[in-house]
Amino acid sequence: MERKVILYIATSLDGYIAAPDDNLDFLSTVEQEGEDYGYEKFMETVDTVIMGRRTYEKVISLVGYFPHADKCSYIISRKPRPDAGSVKFHDGDLKSLVTKLKSEKGKNIFCDGGAEIVNGLLKDDLIDEFILSIVPVLLGSGIKLFQDDRPEMKLGLASTKQYPKGLVQLHYKRSRK
Amino acid sequence: MERKVILYIATSLDGYIAAPDDNLDFLSTVEQEGEDYGYEKFMETVDTVIMGRRTYEKVISLVGYFPHADKCSYIISRKPRPDAGSVKFHDGDLKSLVTKLKSEKGKNIFCDGGAEIVNGLLKDDLIDEFILSIVPVLLGSGIKLFQDDRPEMKLGLASTKQYPKGLVQLHYKRSRK
Repeated sequence: MERKVILYIATSLDGYIAAPDDNLDFLSTVEQEGEDYGYEKFMETVDTVIMGRRTYEKVISLVGYFPHADKCSYIISRKPRPDAGSVKFHDGDLKSLVTKLKSEKGKNIFCDGGAEIVNGLLKDDLIDEFILSIVPVLLGSGIKLFQDDRPEMKLGLASTKQYPKGLVQLHYKRSRK
Repeated sequence: MERKVILYIATSLDGYIAAPDDNLDFLSTVEQEGEDYGYEKFMETVDTVIMGRRTYEKVISLVGYFPHADKCSYIISRKPRPDAGSVKFHDGDLKSLVTKLKSEKGKNIFCDGGAEIVNGLLKDDLIDEFILSIVPVLLGSGIKLFQDDRPEMKLGLASTKQYPKGLVQLHYKRSRK
């Protein structure tokens, strides 16, 4: 079975993955001790991470280190940068990279954002599954997960899960038939 | 108890209430005989409808008649137009109208779109509940339900419901405390 590219990401109900200035404070409204919203279990199913350079730097600034060092990570960057251990910077074509990765053997591939990478992948129909965690807030402005001018795509609902803090996790699979 | 303004609307997973040119074909992917996704039951809880003039005309062109003739309807229009039975055209301030309606006795108030009315109401924090039916499709472009430059608002999740055709209905209440 071909490996899948899976988007696993949190958004506000109005579709923002960050408030203006990349602010992620809204995520704290659903923080709950002992509840990781399936993150760790999901991470066991992937061995490769794709993310944008801005998201990469944001994650490091928030966490203090790069949390996916045990995976093979591709950071999409306009400028070439030297690789650092399991972290490779990719300044070439996104479609070629993902097509190559999907043709190789391995676990699934985690798309960790940001919006530019997600929409770039969607333009070429390269995302196979969507696990969206909807946070019960309207942010009002910020960075929209889904931007205009993408092709229409049918999805199939795989599951929904409701959590005590009001987060709803929706799992969809791309339906290409 | 004060009457509530309730937004009851269907959107694609990427947040569009219509494809370009006000096309609503995506709704047909979740059509199922005998399943109205709670619409009739919801309609029993409201006696007043607010909608934009473009949405009003779209609904009539699709259905062949105005389906809310048994309710008190306010069609928000820039130009003054003569009232027609239970249908009143409102060319004044949206906030004043809704504030007045909320101060009166009656059942709840149904906001039937479109996006301009929804975002106008949200700017003044006038929507009390959100019943969003998420259709399992990415439309790619069209009319976004939630537009930029609104205030941030906390919501509480009231319920989620998953239907056989892959529609998920999310019910939120505005949490003003």
